[in-house]
Amino acid sequence: MKLRFGLIGVGRMGKVYAHHLTSTVQDVELVAIADPAPGAAAEAAMRWGGVPLTDYRDLLKREDIQAVVIATPTHTHVEVVKAAAAAGKQIFCEKPLSLTLEGCDDAIQAVEAAGVMLQIGFNRRFDPAHVAAMEKIKAGVIGKPVMFRSSGRDPKRTSLEFARRESSGGMILDMGIHEFDTARWMMGSDVVRVSTEGGCLVYPELKSVGDIDNAVINLRYENGAIGQIDLTRNAVYGHDVRTEIIGSEGALYIAKLQYTDLLVMKPNNISHDTVPYFMERFAEAYSAELKDFVACLREGREPSATGKDARAATAIGIAATQSLDEGVPVEVNRS
Amino acid sequence: MKLRFGLIGVGRMGKVYAHHLTSTVQDVELVAIADPAPGAAAEAAMRWGGVPLTDYRDLLKREDIQAVVIATPTHTHVEVVKAAAAAGKQIFCEKPLSLTLEGCDDAIQAVEAAGVMLQIGFNRRFDPAHVAAMEKIKAGVIGKPVMFRSSGRDPKRTSLEFARRESSGGMILDMGIHEFDTARWMMGSDVVRVSTEGGCLVYPELKSVGDIDNAVINLRYENGAIGQIDLTRNAVYGHDVRTEIIGSEGALYIAKLQYTDLLVMKPNNISHDTVPYFMERFAEAYSAELKDFVACLREGREPSATGKDARAATAIGIAATQSLDEGVPVEVNRS
Amino acid sequence: MKLRFGLIGVGRMGKVYAHHLTSTVQDVELVAIADPAPGAAAEAAMRWGGVPLTDYRDLLKREDIQAVVIATPTHTHVEVVKAAAAAGKQIFCEKPLSLTLEGCDDAIQAVEAAGVMLQIGFNRRFDPAHVAAMEKIKAGVIGKPVMFRSSGRDPKRTSLEFARRESSGGMILDMGIHEFDTARWMMGSDVVRVSTEGGCLVYPELKSVGDIDNAVINLRYENGAIGQIDLTRNAVYGHDVRTEIIGSEGALYIAKLQYTDLLVMKPNNISHDTVPYFMERFAEAYSAELKDFVACLREGREPSATGKDARAATAIGIAATQSLDEGVPVEVNRS
Amino acid sequence: MKLRFGLIGVGRMGKVYAHHLTSTVQDVELVAIADPAPGAAAEAAMRWGGVPLTDYRDLLKREDIQAVVIATPTHTHVEVVKAAAAAGKQIFCEKPLSLTLEGCDDAIQAVEAAGVMLQIGFNRRFDPAHVAAMEKIKAGVIGKPVMFRSSGRDPKRTSLEFARRESSGGMILDMGIHEFDTARWMMGSDVVRVSTEGGCLVYPELKSVGDIDNAVINLRYENGAIGQIDLTRNAVYGHDVRTEIIGSEGALYIAKLQYTDLLVMKPNNISHDTVPYFMERFAEAYSAELKDFVACLREGREPSATGKDARAATAIGIAATQSLDEGVPVEVNRS
Repeated sequence: MKLRFGLIGVGRMGKVYAHHLTSTVQDVELVAIADPAPGAAAEAAMRWGGVPLTDYRDLLKREDIQAVVIATPTHTHVEVVKAAAAAGKQIFCEKPLSLTLEGCDDAIQAVEAAGVMLQIGFNRRFDPAHVAAMEKIKAGVIGKPVMFRSSGRDPKRTSLEFARRESSGGMILDMGIHEFDTARWMMGSDVVRVSTEGGCLVYPELKSVGDIDNAVINLRYENGAIGQIDLTRNAVYGHDVRTEIIGSEGALYIAKLQYTDLLVMKPNNISHDTVPYFMERFAEAYSAELKDFVACLREGREPSATGKDARAATAIGIAATQSLDEGVPVEVNRS
Repeated sequence: MKLRFGLIGVGRMGKVYAHHLTSTVQDVELVAIADPAPGAAAEAAMRWGGVPLTDYRDLLKREDIQAVVIATPTHTHVEVVKAAAAAGKQIFCEKPLSLTLEGCDDAIQAVEAAGVMLQIGFNRRFDPAHVAAMEKIKAGVIGKPVMFRSSGRDPKRTSLEFARRESSGGMILDMGIHEFDTARWMMGSDVVRVSTEGGCLVYPELKSVGDIDNAVINLRYENGAIGQIDLTRNAVYGHDVRTEIIGSEGALYIAKLQYTDLLVMKPNNISHDTVPYFMERFAEAYSAELKDFVACLREGREPSATGKDARAATAIGIAATQSLDEGVPVEVNRS
Repeated sequence: MKLRFGLIGVGRMGKVYAHHLTSTVQDVELVAIADPAPGAAAEAAMRWGGVPLTDYRDLLKREDIQAVVIATPTHTHVEVVKAAAAAGKQIFCEKPLSLTLEGCDDAIQAVEAAGVMLQIGFNRRFDPAHVAAMEKIKAGVIGKPVMFRSSGRDPKRTSLEFARRESSGGMILDMGIHEFDTARWMMGSDVVRVSTEGGCLVYPELKSVGDIDNAVINLRYENGAIGQIDLTRNAVYGHDVRTEIIGSEGALYIAKLQYTDLLVMKPNNISHDTVPYFMERFAEAYSAELKDFVACLREGREPSATGKDARAATAIGIAATQSLDEGVPVEVNRS
Repeated sequence: MKLRFGLIGVGRMGKVYAHHLTSTVQDVELVAIADPAPGAAAEAAMRWGGVPLTDYRDLLKREDIQAVVIATPTHTHVEVVKAAAAAGKQIFCEKPLSLTLEGCDDAIQAVEAAGVMLQIGFNRRFDPAHVAAMEKIKAGVIGKPVMFRSSGRDPKRTSLEFARRESSGGMILDMGIHEFDTARWMMGSDVVRVSTEGGCLVYPELKSVGDIDNAVINLRYENGAIGQIDLTRNAVYGHDVRTEIIGSEGALYIAKLQYTDLLVMKPNNISHDTVPYFMERFAEAYSAELKDFVACLREGREPSATGKDARAATAIGIAATQSLDEGVPVEVNRS
């Protein structure tokens, strides 16, 4: 029997999920789409089907909906997750769950109280290369992982409005959340301490909204391992995510510097294109994470990225931001 | 208004087209699926919707169908194309159109008489890297193209049943048809002469069905340019298609040797995976070619790969096979 | 005890050998340098030591010289080899030994009659990547080799004077000789038939001296294997040599498209440099081939590239050129 | 006129310099070799010429020597540099100049007092890829450099004897000195603050000598830029040095993961070798740095890597080691 979904929020990411729920994910049905922006839900419903709604609470009231995908603005996530949990819906929520630990805790508590499932949209856990890397780690190919390295690089800054620290959490939380989640997931250990250097070096206008454009972050793990993350908004060449795990008996390296498989060869110069942006880089992952969510529901297993994972990644981001502000290493809140 | 499709044949390639018609291609509807195999159409209709039919002639009778995708066995293509043309349907036909020039001519004539469109499923014309390469050629980046090189390599032989020359046309026609089409398309000139060396070198059992497993083919173009193709069924490492155009002022090189973006690093050894097979290599192209077919219909423009293109590629394959058999260069039938 | 060398001819390649004989090759001494060009020997002797001579016959008369490196113009090779053999010197001769089979036979006979060693400067046999590939083949890593592919590409044409067919043998013999030798060496079988397509497509001025600038060549081997070579003088992007062996259980691929290990990353474009020319590509090989020559002499073993190898490669080149001229496959003279 | 050299110390690095002084560097003469190890100088003199000496002070007394290459154990560098300066010799000294700032200052003072030149063997400044990168930076290709990233990775630990912190300075100073020098050189700004995480994670025996095997280091530059370095002794796959500069308008990336240009292709697996060790990775740089030293002497220009550069790199290493020990960011001593 088909699993019946509601989609809450049909902006940039909501559209991606609508597409996959109606095409690449098997045995699901998109029953309703809710979005308060004028015409947004109606337009989406024209394209992907389902009943268009303005208020997500109307969507949650529908008894023919078993699961929801939440792709609303970040600051509304906790409220919507809590409402969805109270309505007994299974929940897939786009990252980040919340920019505060209190928000994360609230959401986790609500979900636990309601006995529903909560999966967070950490796309790297579903990227084929990262998945393959985890299989190698589990198979012992690299021995004991001892160093984690990750680059999260965007080709341009976000809008100033989005970049405001109150809105995005600042670059470290906003962009780094993926690195922080990957850092925990792939190393199989928690991060206990971080230290950051960073600055507003290329886009001076970001200073006016309290943000930066470049940062480097050291990690110390509970098990003694170490890690390192670099973040930049001025990888003007393209979107560039690299992940590396160095172990006692080998290493793994994920990088995608070329997008289309074409080399252009001119005098003393061979060139190729780059990955435009995260949508292109993780196109397959968005389908895979929904498929996994459905499989978890059907099989009754714990989701691959839980509310607690979201909290832990957020805690690292908060500590790394504090380290930037204070110029000292900061212990990560892991309570 | 949605364009209403019928799908004829729902084997391996038919399933790919059913998937795309119901997901990645916008503004189309899959109205009916016909396949004579017991249960095939019904099973497909359960998954992708549409009315299941056994006889494609019943599908062609439906007035609510404007266009058909033909993905039946090769030897039936001409018959089905002719019937679809007679029924006034727009036609997308999987490659090859026919293994004989007479078959190609018959189909072309029927389509022209009926005034419908015929597009052939030459996937490389829709592969992002090949498309990007053509844009560079048209922009003059490499000057005048003077040499074409292409490798078509499969990781294993087909079944003996399929490999029979009467069924597949033999390896050169079967595998090479893509190279022959690409050879014409990218160089912007016709192939006038071919010469082949080949043999049954790895799978001796292919001899019993009259086939070979390795071949190299020289090309001479009408405009004086030259070309070279290699084909093998024992690229045991993976599916490997490479295309190269050398021009007077630059060159273009398309190759995809890595599939997942992961490097595994062990003592004195760095390794990665390979592309499994053509479905994975050209996954995006199958969607793109249907989208282009729909766009051609809507805009009333000539399709990117016509019946005449299919005839021309077939003619090269027939000549290359004859050259293998006779040990001499053979002129290509271009009448 | 040091092995005492004379160098005959100190043009472009002679300088390379002078450098290696006086630096990277151990336990040898450069005793004399002969070159008829005014000042050439004297200038070289200033730099690398040794007695400068104008006439190579004076060099051959010296009893303190045991071995000679011949790097004179191609058309003099046979004469000098014969004289060196008659003088009892061990001989390293730059490729090609001769552009005619008669020349090769003459030289081989003279060397055999004198009981001296003759090694030919086929640099690819000493390139680290090619050597590593041969080790893999011998270790059975790719099973039975069944297809050979090679690209020999230069970034520009030679001078018209050099390109004259009487002088260079034409592009196929001149550039292709390396491919033909590699084709035999790596496949462990003789080439019995070739067929060529080619033309003067980029540099029309080459026509006036009877030469071409692009060619593709099919190979048939004695053991049934097949091969394919492409040659171009307009790989304007850089010097590009690629060698590929496809076997029943794997394949080997040698390519060096990047020279300096630097990627330059600009908006939607990542680029790197290319190998300038053969001197840079095979820099290590020139040292290695002299070291091997010395080792062969000391150990009394057969050189890695003999006069017979030179004859066989020349025979393939002559046949491939004839095939170009006549438009038919040509059997290779292997008597 | 030839520049006359003395070589002091003919261990592993001394042999490399002896080789280049007698082969790849033009217009120099190796006059004497001094090494206190029994037979070392004599053996080296047999191979590379020159007078063998046991005591370097005898070498410094020779009036026919104008310049010395110092390749003795690190803890002797300052003493030998001072003696050489006092003797009026021009000095090329292998890195590190000294493990203490006092040592560096002593050496610098002695050299300045004597009015001789001192060049330090920071090989990366002479690696073709790093040199090409610097040219791009100077040409403005990447705009303003804002982030520096570097990996210094060895395939194995050193001997325990060498690893002792008193002897090597510990991993951060020993391995990182190259990164610290590159970090300053390529960014054109001084490092003012560092913070380190590290540990002894793979080779527990290193703890007994006070060393670690993995570290990550954040850098803050005087001009506001930031940087990041990772160091590991368990890159078991091979020697791996990567350098990356991210600028406001582009980025540069140096990496050499493949050594021999051969791909081995097996079912679902393509692999290649790796760079064995630093000697192979920087083979060309050792020749280039001596050539540059000679050119600086002849042209009377400042060397590319001075004693002050050595002091600055050492200061970063000392601060980074202190940060590891104390768990806090440490200001770099730049007095």
